Amino acid sequence: MSNSFGRCFRITSFGESHGRCVGVVVDGCPAGLKLSEKVIQRDLDRRRPAQSLITSSRDESDRVELLSGVFQGYTTGAPICMVVENVDIDSRPYEKLKSTPRPGHADYAAYIKYGGFADYRGGGRFSGRITAGFVMAGSVAKKLLKEVLQVEVLAHCCEIGGIKAKESTFEEIKMNVEENPVRCADLEAAEKMLQAVEEASKVGDSLGGTVECIVNPIPAGIGDPIFNTLEGDISKALFSIPAVKSVEFGAGNLFSRLRGSASNDAYVIKNGRVLTETNRAGGILGGISNGMPIICRATFKPTPSLGLPQRTVDLSSGEEAVIQVEGRHDPCIAPRAVPVVEAMVALVVADHAIASGFIPRVIRGRDNGV
Amino acid sequence: MSNSFGRCFRITSFGESHGRCVGVVVDGCPAGLKLSEKVIQRDLDRRRPAQSLITSSRDESDRVELLSGVFQGYTTGAPICMVVENVDIDSRPYEKLKSTPRPGHADYAAYIKYGGFADYRGGGRFSGRITAGFVMAGSVAKKLLKEVLQVEVLAHCCEIGGIKAKESTFEEIKMNVEENPVRCADLEAAEKMLQAVEEASKVGDSLGGTVECIVNPIPAGIGDPIFNTLEGDISKALFSIPAVKSVEFGAGNLFSRLRGSASNDAYVIKNGRVLTETNRAGGILGGISNGMPIICRATFKPTPSLGLPQRTVDLSSGEEAVIQVEGRHDPCIAPRAVPVVEAMVALVVADHAIASGFIPRVIRGRDNGV
Amino acid sequence: MSNSFGRCFRITSFGESHGRCVGVVVDGCPAGLKLSEKVIQRDLDRRRPAQSLITSSRDESDRVELLSGVFQGYTTGAPICMVVENVDIDSRPYEKLKSTPRPGHADYAAYIKYGGFADYRGGGRFSGRITAGFVMAGSVAKKLLKEVLQVEVLAHCCEIGGIKAKESTFEEIKMNVEENPVRCADLEAAEKMLQAVEEASKVGDSLGGTVECIVNPIPAGIGDPIFNTLEGDISKALFSIPAVKSVEFGAGNLFSRLRGSASNDAYVIKNGRVLTETNRAGGILGGISNGMPIICRATFKPTPSLGLPQRTVDLSSGEEAVIQVEGRHDPCIAPRAVPVVEAMVALVVADHAIASGFIPRVIRGRDNGV
Amino acid sequence: MSNSFGRCFRITSFGESHGRCVGVVVDGCPAGLKLSEKVIQRDLDRRRPAQSLITSSRDESDRVELLSGVFQGYTTGAPICMVVENVDIDSRPYEKLKSTPRPGHADYAAYIKYGGFADYRGGGRFSGRITAGFVMAGSVAKKLLKEVLQVEVLAHCCEIGGIKAKESTFEEIKMNVEENPVRCADLEAAEKMLQAVEEASKVGDSLGGTVECIVNPIPAGIGDPIFNTLEGDISKALFSIPAVKSVEFGAGNLFSRLRGSASNDAYVIKNGRVLTETNRAGGILGGISNGMPIICRATFKPTPSLGLPQRTVDLSSGEEAVIQVEGRHDPCIAPRAVPVVEAMVALVVADHAIASGFIPRVIRGRDNGV
Repeated sequence: MSNSFGRCFRITSFGESHGRCVGVVVDGCPAGLKLSEKVIQRDLDRRRPAQSLITSSRDESDRVELLSGVFQGYTTGAPICMVVENVDIDSRPYEKLKSTPRPGHADYAAYIKYGGFADYRGGGRFSGRITAGFVMAGSVAKKLLKEVLQVEVLAHCCEIGGIKAKESTFEEIKMNVEENPVRCADLEAAEKMLQAVEEASKVGDSLGGTVECIVNPIPAGIGDPIFNTLEGDISKALFSIPAVKSVEFGAGNLFSRLRGSASNDAYVIKNGRVLTETNRAGGILGGISNGMPIICRATFKPTPSLGLPQRTVDLSSGEEAVIQVEGRHDPCIAPRAVPVVEAMVALVVADHAIASGFIPRVIRGRDNGV
Repeated sequence: MSNSFGRCFRITSFGESHGRCVGVVVDGCPAGLKLSEKVIQRDLDRRRPAQSLITSSRDESDRVELLSGVFQGYTTGAPICMVVENVDIDSRPYEKLKSTPRPGHADYAAYIKYGGFADYRGGGRFSGRITAGFVMAGSVAKKLLKEVLQVEVLAHCCEIGGIKAKESTFEEIKMNVEENPVRCADLEAAEKMLQAVEEASKVGDSLGGTVECIVNPIPAGIGDPIFNTLEGDISKALFSIPAVKSVEFGAGNLFSRLRGSASNDAYVIKNGRVLTETNRAGGILGGISNGMPIICRATFKPTPSLGLPQRTVDLSSGEEAVIQVEGRHDPCIAPRAVPVVEAMVALVVADHAIASGFIPRVIRGRDNGV
Repeated sequence: MSNSFGRCFRITSFGESHGRCVGVVVDGCPAGLKLSEKVIQRDLDRRRPAQSLITSSRDESDRVELLSGVFQGYTTGAPICMVVENVDIDSRPYEKLKSTPRPGHADYAAYIKYGGFADYRGGGRFSGRITAGFVMAGSVAKKLLKEVLQVEVLAHCCEIGGIKAKESTFEEIKMNVEENPVRCADLEAAEKMLQAVEEASKVGDSLGGTVECIVNPIPAGIGDPIFNTLEGDISKALFSIPAVKSVEFGAGNLFSRLRGSASNDAYVIKNGRVLTETNRAGGILGGISNGMPIICRATFKPTPSLGLPQRTVDLSSGEEAVIQVEGRHDPCIAPRAVPVVEAMVALVVADHAIASGFIPRVIRGRDNGV
Repeated sequence: MSNSFGRCFRITSFGESHGRCVGVVVDGCPAGLKLSEKVIQRDLDRRRPAQSLITSSRDESDRVELLSGVFQGYTTGAPICMVVENVDIDSRPYEKLKSTPRPGHADYAAYIKYGGFADYRGGGRFSGRITAGFVMAGSVAKKLLKEVLQVEVLAHCCEIGGIKAKESTFEEIKMNVEENPVRCADLEAAEKMLQAVEEASKVGDSLGGTVECIVNPIPAGIGDPIFNTLEGDISKALFSIPAVKSVEFGAGNLFSRLRGSASNDAYVIKNGRVLTETNRAGGILGGISNGMPIICRATFKPTPSLGLPQRTVDLSSGEEAVIQVEGRHDPCIAPRAVPVVEAMVALVVADHAIASGFIPRVIRGRDNGV
């Protein structure tokens, strides 16, 4: 039982890769937010595969259906259920994988946990397809943050296959992220990344990557100390995206190499506001926003489904075996994960903004725009 | 409201650095576990400062008091409350810091969030001292895992100030971790780390570091997919330790540089059991344990309290200021955090082991040992 | 944010009376339970209106659609989403009620809480129609309890409009409840109740009633003390059914008139089992089942929608007003609420049975029947 | 695991009747509330036994100790831990009860659930003594409601042993409740109740009773629909008090005998405010406050510990047995439960008032009085 997330802005995920649909229920969205399928569809389209040569060729047309919680164009305070139907499904390649778990996938763990009852087609409940639900919910969270607090959440790929992007400003990310298929704000690095992905893809291999997400501007005082820290909740949210294996904030694991004198962010006053000169803390101290942009990064392992032969075991015979995974897979999942990372971060920030009293229960002024 | 953590094995933390005590309530521990203050004290002693020259000189004698939940030497199923009193407190240095937030500390964020009502003495609720409660609770979790499932949770410092330990086996960690003041399993690296800490300390500076934690052996099938993944819950738990800014599993952020063919762990059969040849996944796939040891790492930023002058602002006057932090502080917090990391990981694994049905509600056989 | 319920077997409700659909997500159902739309439809049909002259004439054909969580006829451990579409909707009568809250309904409270954004058509989110989702979820819970623990949950109307049924055995309820339109196990009382409802209905009035629910047989040891007591969770579940204003267990509010010597249930041994001679405690002591059948009762207030004129206020003008409610309404909601009460009680008992370790995470033996 | 309660204002209970202490942690109290042990002690004193001839003679001096969460006289936003030590304990009478469960008590259910590990002395965790923790937490909630919203929570005994008090106004309750040992607002009824309790007590018997609680004044819009209704949460809270077997709101189970035309509360306008003419709904519609006082009642069964011989079983021999309970017990628990009922209702209302945005995270204006 682990398909709900959030305290005040809570999402419940359902659906499988090759079942009837993938969906999400958002509970706790304040009443009075202007919302339509159009807004959500825009984010959903960014997650869609088949947007370029380097993404999987499954045609997920993914039309959002808004089933509840919106009346006369505004949220009502009631739970918002959204679904996308599954179409263009081809489950045949998975029949042979039924008893031979794919290395790097959840197949074996799922088999043990659910005693063989799990829907194995397309990874079932463990598929990246589930994140379509995250994106729909995140779309509502992003709109809420934008309308009420002018907060924007933006992500891009900052590393793929060892190629690192140079540091980019929030404005550069905004401008460049959708301009290249690897969604990297550094256009030079983007070209190298694209080339690396294509090379790996050609030989049936895949690449890992890192997505960076920035929340900007964000008022100080959002978050909680001890257990429900912004870092704790954002990391928990990010690890719910399949393939994420590392989450860091600000200077992150680089802190291990720094001295305190080089890592503390000095407080300064700019235009009458308290800010820090640098932002190595990634905008969070004591689990609470300090007024600087939140900066976090999630590392995705290379797509485990490979065209190359891999060693595994046959659970029915108990013997070792070799598989070669067919089906359609992204050679590097990070670019497609960009809107998913944005969604998860937005969900947590919206949740904490409500919990911390920054967003009211009813959004007055019925004219908040699309 | 964020002082409780866990679903089935749930802890609630309370207390402040310079208040009367620090404590914890453990709710959900099965009945029938042999438990005494002696067991808990052992872990608590490992967290104590003043164990060597490189740790803070505050004398935290820290005697655990078991206030509830244990009867005739066994847990009863009722909540277990444990406290340690605060002694040897010197709050004077903090009076001057009242309106000048220390860079890198939670002071400013706390000031904004709690409107000036927060207890600022010694960092109050944001102090590392709070982790004494985590360690007491973690001690119960470790005992539970050991008695019922033979699972051990062990941590050590794998990097300090850029000095990395070589990879160590579980047995090497067990043997070496308490043999050197930096708690590193690689004794050669340990010496260099110690030297680095001492050098930083001499000039009033501090160092960051990374703690690695291994859970071994662990059965496959513990954990949940989607939101309550093992990774998500472990990371959330680790980010609740002050100063943690990065959490990774297995190959972690290195995945960003790897190809799939080099990062998937091939399944093999050893002695009739399904295992993986390598363990780059860190024992977790799809949020669920796969039968290999769980491996995670948390990076701690350098202690922000420095003897060096630092730029800050005076919140009462609204002007920039300079502070120099007095008081007693560890020049590198990572070694002391080793038992805290173990505690947090143990809490999550115990919680999930109960949720996944691996630990019963009553532990029969009244002879489970100390 | 209050549309989820349960700890281990958790439901999330969504949908409105006159929106696109009403639905529910069940999270935490063990894998391996045989489940089909047919099983759920059977319970849903019992909730349907227009089953007799004394129920509302809205034709809710209510075909369940199982959207997720079931694969090859068995639950997979993934969340189960079920919806029924809304058809035969006539929203016109509600337009005039928009600013004149109906006495006894939630209209005014909803208006204040959601700032006028709530969907007012047919009561929107506050409509009894929402309970179609409860019934679908309860159907899964009842099947789970029956298959794994042989536990049955059965309800009937024990009082309507002051007419009380005589005490009935579990077997009598089973035999008689569906044999009369008021769903009362005492067939003589049932006739009088029916007559009373018809009389009230004729003059545009309505009647209150009480539904009794029995869980039988139930093993001792299910439940928790202090806050998550069986009584606490069952009552919370029952108060989520619109119109419930009283919940009692065993002798209930009669205890206020009894002496201890007449109210304690003496322990006896029957066929080697510890039982109580009487069952005034309603099968629960200290929040935990004691091995005797659980007995609880929920009182429903009379349907507030009346054909008679009622005094209210016009929120747009701020003046007093008179309304006469059109639309289709049950003159007594209690008979239709019988399967809803069963559903809510079954949900709580299933939840606690899992939490207390009585139901495993995977139901082995793939032949558990329909 | 069921020792925490509440969403935004959350309490965690710990301690046993004959252990070292009874305590509570309050998490989520806003910063800036003036709070001292004196305030809490006042409520605690009202719960104390030995206040008159008709209460148990155990001397529970019950001095509250405030261990955390308050600094310089104000709450800090950190968790507030409060304990009372257990003194004047005599555990001897319980040794013989160890294997013979007392009828009407939780002994047998606890024995089954905790496999014989539960602390049986004085009822252990199931004792009414646990409610000392509820009262301390409730005291904080009551102060918060009073200071911020001018909301008062007041209870009295409205029925004992079949003797009903006449309906009393809020002011009559306030004036009379502490003026007589049965805490009944109707002084005539109070005398008869007292006599009835004394008569039952003389023969070793006990009486049940009903406590009514009123929350007044209360703004409209507090609460939530569906699962976290005010009724659901208040009832869950009240069923956590040992011996409660029935909870009702407004006309409660009387609704079963009413027609809609006699039970709906007509809306009227008084001094420009929307009110209802009557208050049969008990101030709650759709789970949300409607602006009228909240009225609820909890029925307590007669104290199960009797001086009379009772039939039970000997769990060690498996044979039937007879016990006569020694020790000190209230012949009617309802009068002492009055402050406990107030506490539980106050906790829920405070929790919902925060969740609904009626109480801010920081209470500005440092002069909120004692």
